[in-house]
Amino acid sequence: MRIIDLNCDMGESYGAYKLGLDESVIRHITSANIACGWHAGDPEVMDKTVKLAVDNSVGIGAHPGYPDLLGFGRRNMDCTPEEIRRYIIYQIGALSAFCAIHGARLQHVKPHGALYLAAVENEPIARAVAQAIISVDPNLIYVALAGAKGEMVRRIGKAVGLKVVYEAFPDRAYTPEGTLVSRRKPGAVIKDPKEVARRALLMAAEGVVVAVDGTRIPLEAQTICVHGDTPSAVELVRSIRETFKSEGIVLKPMGLISE
Amino acid sequence: MRIIDLNCDMGESYGAYKLGLDESVIRHITSANIACGWHAGDPEVMDKTVKLAVDNSVGIGAHPGYPDLLGFGRRNMDCTPEEIRRYIIYQIGALSAFCAIHGARLQHVKPHGALYLAAVENEPIARAVAQAIISVDPNLIYVALAGAKGEMVRRIGKAVGLKVVYEAFPDRAYTPEGTLVSRRKPGAVIKDPKEVARRALLMAAEGVVVAVDGTRIPLEAQTICVHGDTPSAVELVRSIRETFKSEGIVLKPMGLISE
Amino acid sequence: MRIIDLNCDMGESYGAYKLGLDESVIRHITSANIACGWHAGDPEVMDKTVKLAVDNSVGIGAHPGYPDLLGFGRRNMDCTPEEIRRYIIYQIGALSAFCAIHGARLQHVKPHGALYLAAVENEPIARAVAQAIISVDPNLIYVALAGAKGEMVRRIGKAVGLKVVYEAFPDRAYTPEGTLVSRRKPGAVIKDPKEVARRALLMAAEGVVVAVDGTRIPLEAQTICVHGDTPSAVELVRSIRETFKSEGIVLKPMGLISE
Amino acid sequence: MRIIDLNCDMGESYGAYKLGLDESVIRHITSANIACGWHAGDPEVMDKTVKLAVDNSVGIGAHPGYPDLLGFGRRNMDCTPEEIRRYIIYQIGALSAFCAIHGARLQHVKPHGALYLAAVENEPIARAVAQAIISVDPNLIYVALAGAKGEMVRRIGKAVGLKVVYEAFPDRAYTPEGTLVSRRKPGAVIKDPKEVARRALLMAAEGVVVAVDGTRIPLEAQTICVHGDTPSAVELVRSIRETFKSEGIVLKPMGLISE
Repeated sequence: MRIIDLNCDMGESYGAYKLGLDESVIRHITSANIACGWHAGDPEVMDKTVKLAVDNSVGIGAHPGYPDLLGFGRRNMDCTPEEIRRYIIYQIGALSAFCAIHGARLQHVKPHGALYLAAVENEPIARAVAQAIISVDPNLIYVALAGAKGEMVRRIGKAVGLKVVYEAFPDRAYTPEGTLVSRRKPGAVIKDPKEVARRALLMAAEGVVVAVDGTRIPLEAQTICVHGDTPSAVELVRSIRETFKSEGIVLKPMGLISE
Repeated sequence: MRIIDLNCDMGESYGAYKLGLDESVIRHITSANIACGWHAGDPEVMDKTVKLAVDNSVGIGAHPGYPDLLGFGRRNMDCTPEEIRRYIIYQIGALSAFCAIHGARLQHVKPHGALYLAAVENEPIARAVAQAIISVDPNLIYVALAGAKGEMVRRIGKAVGLKVVYEAFPDRAYTPEGTLVSRRKPGAVIKDPKEVARRALLMAAEGVVVAVDGTRIPLEAQTICVHGDTPSAVELVRSIRETFKSEGIVLKPMGLISE
Repeated sequence: MRIIDLNCDMGESYGAYKLGLDESVIRHITSANIACGWHAGDPEVMDKTVKLAVDNSVGIGAHPGYPDLLGFGRRNMDCTPEEIRRYIIYQIGALSAFCAIHGARLQHVKPHGALYLAAVENEPIARAVAQAIISVDPNLIYVALAGAKGEMVRRIGKAVGLKVVYEAFPDRAYTPEGTLVSRRKPGAVIKDPKEVARRALLMAAEGVVVAVDGTRIPLEAQTICVHGDTPSAVELVRSIRETFKSEGIVLKPMGLISE
Repeated sequence: MRIIDLNCDMGESYGAYKLGLDESVIRHITSANIACGWHAGDPEVMDKTVKLAVDNSVGIGAHPGYPDLLGFGRRNMDCTPEEIRRYIIYQIGALSAFCAIHGARLQHVKPHGALYLAAVENEPIARAVAQAIISVDPNLIYVALAGAKGEMVRRIGKAVGLKVVYEAFPDRAYTPEGTLVSRRKPGAVIKDPKEVARRALLMAAEGVVVAVDGTRIPLEAQTICVHGDTPSAVELVRSIRETFKSEGIVLKPMGLISE
């Protein structure tokens, strides 16, 4: 029997602006990455999303990002590792308070957007993220990219003493080297829910992804990430959930999966 | 022997902008109200100010404010109590994370500026503040205005189960009714450090303030607030400290004063 | 033959957040109130919305608001008249630059949300708004609330030398005194498109509104405001446009209606 | 007789935060680069700084920056050229409105901090800046870095049809190739006011800078930039002004210097 986690970004609305289909999507996932008010999210959204996660027994993660609401945290900013360390501590703290009022504990931290990519590309930034996480709470899980490109992040995370969980993207194409195909290239994003579910199953059941050239690559992942802000997101997560159920894959929040 | 706390707003710098003389002032006070990044402060400032407080054995308080950096949190905003409750939870959480990384615990919460005044004037807002505080951590102290105007806040704070500490302002003139003279009136702010120290002593030693008409009013206060952003702030806090020392008044963080 | 203007708030999206159905609604209106990046809108949205207005021969208005993106400019802020004057100058200037690059001229200014209401309730604020507008460009039109409550704003606007245009809301209930029924009361907002179109026609053809008690009140208005952010907005503006056409009411941008 | 302009960044205060010695410095310069509310500045500061420039017959420039108040616009952000073009249009427009209310015209545009450097390093960004400027007002001057590194910016600026003015920094060390020595290297910033004044004189009188290896390099510049946010800024600009006067160098706003 294989056990895996299914995570999704949540709580990305802001003030009068609504984004995502959180109420529907959350019923099918096991971990939620909740925006912390910098690139998206606000205290009302954070409060309601944490409650939604608690009500659905979904693991709660902080999803810290750059101070760039206008760019939704998707643009790289040349922040120093020290700046990033403090930005993440701040955001983890803010979300933790909403966990506290709902009697929940924060499960994991996953940087958002350009900050996620910066940590993958830049060792001092990966270290700053890891140090931020462990300094606030050593029980938090650091979610890192599965595959070749994420190797450094995992090494850094473990070196500082964190539990690291590897994440794979069933709706993204992979190169034969085990890295994500750039979003700017055609075919980088896979949209057919059935195809995505098949890929998710292969990841969960066999730890394998089929690269763009057809080769099967090993890809160890304890959590699978799907995007919740597309119109087809609900169909997508439901499709994965049903496929997993029929194939005997058990979904659990990453914090409840023993190493 | 009388024991009292001396509190001061700290950590109000932001990015390239420096405000206050925190490094000098903190050596003379016993509790610091630290801005949480909304009306002032940023993660770097919060980190350094918490460390400064720890290094000086000063009690740490969250100083949450309105989302109005441009107005420094001094302008009233018609936020709902629910909005305010969540804004305070968010800001307490953010500061708490910096306490955690420095091995410290948050001692108290004192709303800033227009939010402080809104809580004094408006019972649903006072309740929202109190509920925010107790929901995050029931051990936190709620700092409320001493005297007639603060009575409602204290009642609300105690009703929800919080420890409430009363605060007096030795550099502000009081009416015979025991409320602060409006800043818009002449003489509202007392600037002579020796006079302020004398008033602080009267508050600490006898629980009394001399109103503008010369009458002595009882004013129970466990903490005395001075402002740290004026050029004379260092002189002012040093003057109070020395006066207290020579008169046998002991200064202690409010969290260490038994009720 | 009666001539009237039909205005709608536009350009309220922000970064990754989309709001409103601007592309569809703009085909049926004659003036657009474009957010200026404070309570909503951003440079990309402003650029595209100004172009959309130019392409559809729609009059362009600045829709300045409070510095409160989180509250969408709907919460009152105790800003001084001087602060408000400068906030409006800033926002008019920013939008004017986008008009300039598209070869258009700004037609009018209409404050947004809580700022609109503050100007109706508070004479120094109404004066600050009027002075801001005329100081930047004396040809700009100040859009003010039609009816009893807007009387002061119109008087102030005219006193400083501005052309003032009166605005009525066909989807809002009116009291017998000619003021808007508070949104908090039942029936304050009329949702049936046909009913709204009938009310708009009565306003345009006869200068009359039927109050909640059935009395007919005179209500002089040169522009009619509809909301573009509801799902039924397109149907609503189309319904008004068609009703006007069949009844011989001509729609024109307010700047082209001679006094 | 040589004529040259002396420019300085101004209007960098924000809300309660004061930065710079604008009132003193402006009496000695001929052009002011005024922050536009994004990386620094706010409507009150912009209003007062424009008035200060008008009162002192100083040429007014827009000093647009990245949307990064927290980082003071000094951190690079991976914005697209289209984003940058619109950010600059917005900021030029906002400042232009304050010029309008004081009966002044905007003279020039000089990007701030990381945006200035991005335009020097990246041709599409330089083009975006130039297109932003010319689309708002073709009479505006584009201030570009003098020397080898600024060559591309000047070429782009002229290609789109702008008047370009070259800027040199007397308080910065230059390499023998005519580029600025990185701030991270020792000796990059020259602090002695007399030495800076001597270098400014050499730039103004002979169009020459002495590089770190002692070689004299030609450096054509129509404006000289000094920094106004240091304690010695007033002394520095006064020293340059007096040196120029005694040596017969005439100071004039760049817009009044015929090509």
